[in-house]
Amino acid sequence: MKNIEAFGIIGGDKRQLAAAQAIKSEGYTVHVSGFEKIKDEVSCFGGTMPHEECVLCSDVIIFPLPLTKDNMTLNTPFSEKRIYLNEEFARLFRGKLVFCPSKDKLVKTGRYWQEAKVYDFLNREEMQVCNAVPTAEGAIEIAIREYPGTLNGSRCLVTGYGRIGRVLAKMLCGMGAKVYVSARRKDSLAWIRLGGYTPVEHSDIINSGEFDIIFNTVPALILDAHIMAKIAVRSLIIDLASQPGGVDFESAKRMGIKTVHALSLPGKTAPKTSGEIIKETIFNILEEEKF
Amino acid sequence: MKNIEAFGIIGGDKRQLAAAQAIKSEGYTVHVSGFEKIKDEVSCFGGTMPHEECVLCSDVIIFPLPLTKDNMTLNTPFSEKRIYLNEEFARLFRGKLVFCPSKDKLVKTGRYWQEAKVYDFLNREEMQVCNAVPTAEGAIEIAIREYPGTLNGSRCLVTGYGRIGRVLAKMLCGMGAKVYVSARRKDSLAWIRLGGYTPVEHSDIINSGEFDIIFNTVPALILDAHIMAKIAVRSLIIDLASQPGGVDFESAKRMGIKTVHALSLPGKTAPKTSGEIIKETIFNILEEEKF
Amino acid sequence: MKNIEAFGIIGGDKRQLAAAQAIKSEGYTVHVSGFEKIKDEVSCFGGTMPHEECVLCSDVIIFPLPLTKDNMTLNTPFSEKRIYLNEEFARLFRGKLVFCPSKDKLVKTGRYWQEAKVYDFLNREEMQVCNAVPTAEGAIEIAIREYPGTLNGSRCLVTGYGRIGRVLAKMLCGMGAKVYVSARRKDSLAWIRLGGYTPVEHSDIINSGEFDIIFNTVPALILDAHIMAKIAVRSLIIDLASQPGGVDFESAKRMGIKTVHALSLPGKTAPKTSGEIIKETIFNILEEEKF
Amino acid sequence: MKNIEAFGIIGGDKRQLAAAQAIKSEGYTVHVSGFEKIKDEVSCFGGTMPHEECVLCSDVIIFPLPLTKDNMTLNTPFSEKRIYLNEEFARLFRGKLVFCPSKDKLVKTGRYWQEAKVYDFLNREEMQVCNAVPTAEGAIEIAIREYPGTLNGSRCLVTGYGRIGRVLAKMLCGMGAKVYVSARRKDSLAWIRLGGYTPVEHSDIINSGEFDIIFNTVPALILDAHIMAKIAVRSLIIDLASQPGGVDFESAKRMGIKTVHALSLPGKTAPKTSGEIIKETIFNILEEEKF
Repeated sequence: MKNIEAFGIIGGDKRQLAAAQAIKSEGYTVHVSGFEKIKDEVSCFGGTMPHEECVLCSDVIIFPLPLTKDNMTLNTPFSEKRIYLNEEFARLFRGKLVFCPSKDKLVKTGRYWQEAKVYDFLNREEMQVCNAVPTAEGAIEIAIREYPGTLNGSRCLVTGYGRIGRVLAKMLCGMGAKVYVSARRKDSLAWIRLGGYTPVEHSDIINSGEFDIIFNTVPALILDAHIMAKIAVRSLIIDLASQPGGVDFESAKRMGIKTVHALSLPGKTAPKTSGEIIKETIFNILEEEKF
Repeated sequence: MKNIEAFGIIGGDKRQLAAAQAIKSEGYTVHVSGFEKIKDEVSCFGGTMPHEECVLCSDVIIFPLPLTKDNMTLNTPFSEKRIYLNEEFARLFRGKLVFCPSKDKLVKTGRYWQEAKVYDFLNREEMQVCNAVPTAEGAIEIAIREYPGTLNGSRCLVTGYGRIGRVLAKMLCGMGAKVYVSARRKDSLAWIRLGGYTPVEHSDIINSGEFDIIFNTVPALILDAHIMAKIAVRSLIIDLASQPGGVDFESAKRMGIKTVHALSLPGKTAPKTSGEIIKETIFNILEEEKF
Repeated sequence: MKNIEAFGIIGGDKRQLAAAQAIKSEGYTVHVSGFEKIKDEVSCFGGTMPHEECVLCSDVIIFPLPLTKDNMTLNTPFSEKRIYLNEEFARLFRGKLVFCPSKDKLVKTGRYWQEAKVYDFLNREEMQVCNAVPTAEGAIEIAIREYPGTLNGSRCLVTGYGRIGRVLAKMLCGMGAKVYVSARRKDSLAWIRLGGYTPVEHSDIINSGEFDIIFNTVPALILDAHIMAKIAVRSLIIDLASQPGGVDFESAKRMGIKTVHALSLPGKTAPKTSGEIIKETIFNILEEEKF
Repeated sequence: MKNIEAFGIIGGDKRQLAAAQAIKSEGYTVHVSGFEKIKDEVSCFGGTMPHEECVLCSDVIIFPLPLTKDNMTLNTPFSEKRIYLNEEFARLFRGKLVFCPSKDKLVKTGRYWQEAKVYDFLNREEMQVCNAVPTAEGAIEIAIREYPGTLNGSRCLVTGYGRIGRVLAKMLCGMGAKVYVSARRKDSLAWIRLGGYTPVEHSDIINSGEFDIIFNTVPALILDAHIMAKIAVRSLIIDLASQPGGVDFESAKRMGIKTVHALSLPGKTAPKTSGEIIKETIFNILEEEKF
């Protein structure tokens, strides 16, 4: 990475600052923009600067997670100023290296993005894998807090054995829970058994008995009223799938089942680690692309 | 236990209610007293009754955890009424089976206690072992919540390898932390290594590097200012030792180290499980004594 | 599976008998052929019969693992009789369901195979996953036996994080070894770290220090003389990759490094479990195909 | 340990040589005696010398494990010469530091032992703890070799939750077995459950179902014919208790149950680690005694 000297971080929450810190600690210059509300915390980067200046001074610019909350402006929770995602904005980045989540969305906001080198860091496999960790920890924190018994010895169901399911099942097992994991594919079921958990076919969840805690990781309506009536009447349900989630919340409410729809856990639970993961992923890409 | 029909629960928090529930679900009659503030929750036991009546109707009476908070009255957080621990109170229990924590303290409050059969359930080994679980889970919940990174991959020190240290180290390891455990005895150090943790002699803590999170389980001042300056300047310290704890909190504050003195975690984290442990321990004693 | 009544097992070792046993215990008729040398053990199946008769009586026929050792005859270690894989043999199976390993090889031995329904059970993902278990256990048995220290506390390298690497690393960790796993892809390295092991990039193995035991699972020459000189001079090397393996055995010998090329471990270590896996996989296929 | 320069190792097997090697690698002089049959292997210590000379040149002398096999002579499997444990032998050690197993037995062989400082290294807690590791690994090696299925997924019973039971249960669990552990005390049963195993009261073993593999660690007849008939008819039984063991071998034979009485596993499975444990324990004593 001999051609790169300065990074610019525009917008975002504490994760972006943690990423900034991690980049700085490797000896690079880091400029930040969009942090007016927490000036003290960014004084180590020379304070927050106007975004135009930040782009100008930086070889690489990093956008926040999520990119935008209103589909119009950049996500800058620590600033009152609004930065519109439009052609004028796009023009600033000609010839720059840009790292962002939701690349598809970004490049539609201006033709000038074609003249920048834009990389999506969020859809990288290692980013997704690493992000499963703070998500799983956040889920475990909720479970300890909300469930009146101990995880140890409790009967837990994790639906889905993707990245989050895999990490979460391991941690629950490490806490001493009796872990059931549901999946559809035969080889997933084999891996579940090898992980030391009880495998359950999705279609057979209804026959797997009552659970103390259910963690949903599948973005499809697996936990419908019918199934909940059989396995969840005394459960705590924690839904980790993104909107609209995989739980029939209305029926759950009617049945008196406690549910938590837990979103964006990485940023809440572990901004420091999340920022380090962002930095790590971006550096992996920079190395692969031989900058 | 053919000679026992009815249990009386006087005072205490949600743990006592969970114990009551667990006893009831084995087919025994349970009377409760001292729960005026949460009448609805005790309706399944026929409502809360005056303690004199409760004693009269019960073969076995169970006292709360802790027994008393002011050393004068029984600990009844869900009641406005004060029940004094005096001779008059003691007299009620003649010929009864009584289970309590802190037996030594109780029997000093009246000579009539000599005419009751009083058992201490708190100092039973299996009670202490089981209670380590909600304590450890509570500590982990605090750590996930307060530490800005993930436990996974973090460098954790657990001081002491007693019951809590042993359970906590296992759970931290199950969460993917790098776990160091300090102890004094050579065989403890051997067990620590066999558990998969890095053993550290108490006297060598100062040379073991910086930690992200430190859990103190030893009721002695291990973490003094000198040691903290070497290993804890960027740490979160969670003290699980009972008052006054094992951390020099003043120095920590001066050094800007974040500390949490976490007390009574079982009742807070997992009242249901804690109540079940109380019930289990009392039933073990009843069986051993062949009632 | 209402259309199936009888299974025929022709040739193979103890695994096939275990498969036969597992099928029988689900209520199906099982005929076996090619077991003249161990007549007593197959008496529960009505004894060994000529293979023509076996085919005739069976709806489903199962071939051995491996299919053939000489590329001319069926692999029948428990029989003196040779069964040639030719057109005449193929003709017997017209209209039958046949399960075999190495389907490509089989169907080339006669045109009549086109008139049978031939399924390859060996290349099924769940078969491969499950087979990793006896392979890993076999490797651990060799390691305990041949290494003069204990696995517990030893420094182990597993090259590759495919199915065998993943299962083996977990078991080694469960035995208390310090486990390093090498891989090439960034997301594999992330998973390795999440598994609790130290990740090593393939290209960086040479800098990862000396190991007590090295398990190779990659079918490519990773452990060349150059690398072995740096990390393996005092190691035990166990090669689990199929012929020709991933170790420069000649150099190892010259350097005095102890090597074991361990092949076909499932059949040797755990014929019973291996047979059950074969049965399970075949039944999965039968269900999916709705026989 | 500034007063000690030279160690003498007299008799014993490969463990003693490993201990010699470990001591030498810390910079001490080591003399060995009683290794005529493997002269090459002891050339690094200046060859094997007469035991009288060895004692003379050494400040500390270490005796083999076991001390004697015939209760008359020192245990010297690598020598044809017999060294009698008598008054004449004892006299050699006046004023010396001597480390041995079975101190009680040794000091009875001569009054002169009163003039030596004799320490028993075998009954030290950390030695016993560490020795449980090679014993457990040896047991697992036997189980993988002798059991026709995989440990992974098998139903295992470990009787007793002492040092060996505790280490063995952890390793079996790490291999993916379903582990049951039997014990008598309530707090042991609590620890067993916390370890992630299914606790079984000794008196309730008979009702705990059939097992694939049973490991006995209790030196009392727990597995009698009556119990074996209920839980062990298809089991492999590995007895780790010292003579006469805890299994009714005759009944087992009559019932066709495969049994292995596995003795002295540390020396067989892991002489190197066993020797290092001996050295470590002796050095711990020397430090505590401030030599």
